[in-house]
Amino acid sequence: MRIDILTLFPEVFDFFNHSILGKAKEKNLLEINAVNIRDYSLNKHKKVDDYPYGGGAGMVMAPQPTIDAIKAVKKNNPGKVIFLGPRGKTFNQEEGKRLAKEENLIFLCGHYEGIDERIYNYIDEEISLGDFVLTGGESAAIPIIDAIVRLVPGILKNEESYKDDSFYNGLLEYPQYTRPIDYEGDKVPDVLISGHHENIRKWRRLQSLLITKERRKDLFDEVELTKEDKKLLKEHYSVHKAQCIVHSEKEDFSCDEN
Amino acid sequence: MRIDILTLFPEVFDFFNHSILGKAKEKNLLEINAVNIRDYSLNKHKKVDDYPYGGGAGMVMAPQPTIDAIKAVKKNNPGKVIFLGPRGKTFNQEEGKRLAKEENLIFLCGHYEGIDERIYNYIDEEISLGDFVLTGGESAAIPIIDAIVRLVPGILKNEESYKDDSFYNGLLEYPQYTRPIDYEGDKVPDVLISGHHENIRKWRRLQSLLITKERRKDLFDEVELTKEDKKLLKEHYSVHKAQCIVHSEKEDFSCDEN
Repeated sequence: MRIDILTLFPEVFDFFNHSILGKAKEKNLLEINAVNIRDYSLNKHKKVDDYPYGGGAGMVMAPQPTIDAIKAVKKNNPGKVIFLGPRGKTFNQEEGKRLAKEENLIFLCGHYEGIDERIYNYIDEEISLGDFVLTGGESAAIPIIDAIVRLVPGILKNEESYKDDSFYNGLLEYPQYTRPIDYEGDKVPDVLISGHHENIRKWRRLQSLLITKERRKDLFDEVELTKEDKKLLKEHYSVHKAQCIVHSEKEDFSCDEN
Repeated sequence: MRIDILTLFPEVFDFFNHSILGKAKEKNLLEINAVNIRDYSLNKHKKVDDYPYGGGAGMVMAPQPTIDAIKAVKKNNPGKVIFLGPRGKTFNQEEGKRLAKEENLIFLCGHYEGIDERIYNYIDEEISLGDFVLTGGESAAIPIIDAIVRLVPGILKNEESYKDDSFYNGLLEYPQYTRPIDYEGDKVPDVLISGHHENIRKWRRLQSLLITKERRKDLFDEVELTKEDKKLLKEHYSVHKAQCIVHSEKEDFSCDEN
């Protein structure tokens, strides 16, 4: 996968030389180029922004440097131009999977108070990281590129390792434990050291269901529970009957089933 | 504001030496320290992770190095310990405003398949960037810290400059234009160069309303429209009557009003 990033702060993308993705770059599975928009400014002071027409605080990224930078990058990268901006569709795992199928991508990072509206003529898609304001698109590009790239086959050491991740199957992840068995009196649950694979699998599934139900009711409500899921929840709540009574006072699905 | 970040990849936080926030650091309004968890490992190979009990792909961050790193940082930073993880509450502008009021914050970045569940005993809050999987908490820490820090008074050059931002008043931002007036035949709207401040204000408000309505119906539905907003929309749709008929077929608020 080849990614070009148009930015006023190319240095920040050193990010991708570190961490797990640095290894993918070494293996030539991933090429990430940060292109400085300022290099394309025809202004003698290399200005890239100017005051907004109609007044108001802040500066606006001017058409010429950004549009010329996009045109230059498109000569070597045939990918979609994605602007990281607040008007875009909110990024999520589904969007990540969709974009992970592309061979080439171009990301445009805005800055200051925004970009001149006419730059949108050169943009194919706008993606938003979430409902919050950033100082620039760079802080959005980093997690979005991270989330996309890790889904490209071969990038992660072990292809297995994303299959169990949160949101992959719509549930939050079960609790994880590693050595030591006893850390200052706080112990690993017995089932995980039992060696009984079927019980471990069921325990983990139940924990995922319970954690998702407690923390992210919105995700839980989207999941289609299997017959086994319902059985696991029912057993759990019949064991924890006192807990179940408390739950049932606030319209709890699993308790209703009892 | 003082922020300590516990991470396995401290280099990536060079991010905050660049961009607008670099200036805030220079002015001593902001102190950001990236602390390497690995430095606290008592293992002779400075190991920080281990295989999960119960089996499965990936590695889990072990209790000792992370917990000792948290304890060490807490000696100099009395702030909350915030873990960047998928089970947390989704970050948004409201959360940003809440955290911008803190004088001290500690962020913990997870990695690999997750952290040992016992580390949660040392965590005050968990925050999620969104519904997608990252290679590590670092890619979430960057935008979250960016969004928080820019709300701290004095950090941005012009305190004005965040007042108009998207999501600040629940609407997406109006289109911005800067010089030249004519860019390859594509012109700035007349109203913005009219010098008529009241018309400019109304035009911008209407654009914000229309863009939000089209792109983010969910946000639009949350906004309490003023009397002026309703008037602006009504005028707009009576001018664009043909457009309105198309809209009304899919239950459009503003057209219903006509």
